[in-house]
Amino acid sequence: MKPIWPFFEDLTVSTVETFGGYEVTREEIVTFAAHYDPQPFHLSDEGAVDTPFRSLAASGWHSCGMMMRILVDHLQSDPERQAANIGAVGIDELRWLKPVRSGDRLSCHAEIIEKRVSQSRPDMGLVRSRMTVLNQKGEAVMTMLPLVMVRTRTGC
Amino acid sequence: MKPIWPFFEDLTVSTVETFGGYEVTREEIVTFAAHYDPQPFHLSDEGAVDTPFRSLAASGWHSCGMMMRILVDHLQSDPERQAANIGAVGIDELRWLKPVRSGDRLSCHAEIIEKRVSQSRPDMGLVRSRMTVLNQKGEAVMTMLPLVMVRTRTGC
Repeated sequence: MKPIWPFFEDLTVSTVETFGGYEVTREEIVTFAAHYDPQPFHLSDEGAVDTPFRSLAASGWHSCGMMMRILVDHLQSDPERQAANIGAVGIDELRWLKPVRSGDRLSCHAEIIEKRVSQSRPDMGLVRSRMTVLNQKGEAVMTMLPLVMVRTRTGC
Repeated sequence: MKPIWPFFEDLTVSTVETFGGYEVTREEIVTFAAHYDPQPFHLSDEGAVDTPFRSLAASGWHSCGMMMRILVDHLQSDPERQAANIGAVGIDELRWLKPVRSGDRLSCHAEIIEKRVSQSRPDMGLVRSRMTVLNQKGEAVMTMLPLVMVRTRTGC
């Protein structure tokens, strides 16, 4: 498998990868929500009945966490890629499209849409991708446009 | 204290609130990262030495979770506000500006910047705010523009 970003110079816009298979459990939905998003619809089915969710749904921030775990597991399967991945500047256009439920199996579809060398730091490139998180039915449950920093070979 | 959004009709653009006081611990940083973002710089000081973080820093998604907990605690201090808060469509322009560290105390500064009734659902309004998460030094560590759904009084 060809990695997306071992180093900035190796990146190609339009490269696409699909990866992951994260099993979502009721226990994990409730545990995350109890810590970080204790709204009734993230804590029990009963708390969701009179809401648009209808039954227990994961916090949107929990979905972000699960996406990140899927991505990190994928990146760490290649040591060189891990080393070049410095961190994220931020995220644009994060959208929660469908509820994430207990029993869902989440995967990621990532496409590089833009790359440029940093003006201020030539040892660093900026890469924008389009990330789509899909459930086991192939439905997009979340989309976002991460902007990440990637080391250049010349900066090493 | 006047709530920001008991219902859509009560909202006023430019309303500002500051709230929260979340104590960040090393144990919580590492626990979150082990589950959702197990990159070396989120797991130990040693793993961060050769990175721009220099020492242990919270996952950016952990910062989002802590921001959400601060916000939910604030909203749940007013039952009417809680009832009107349906959920979020998404987030624009999320930016991680500074590392969040063990020992930091996080608070939120929220300003309503736009409101409009939903075209498709007159029982619902869309509210955009600017959220800034600050540390105990008053430094902005994270900013974002959440877009949330709020019930209209006419829709109840």
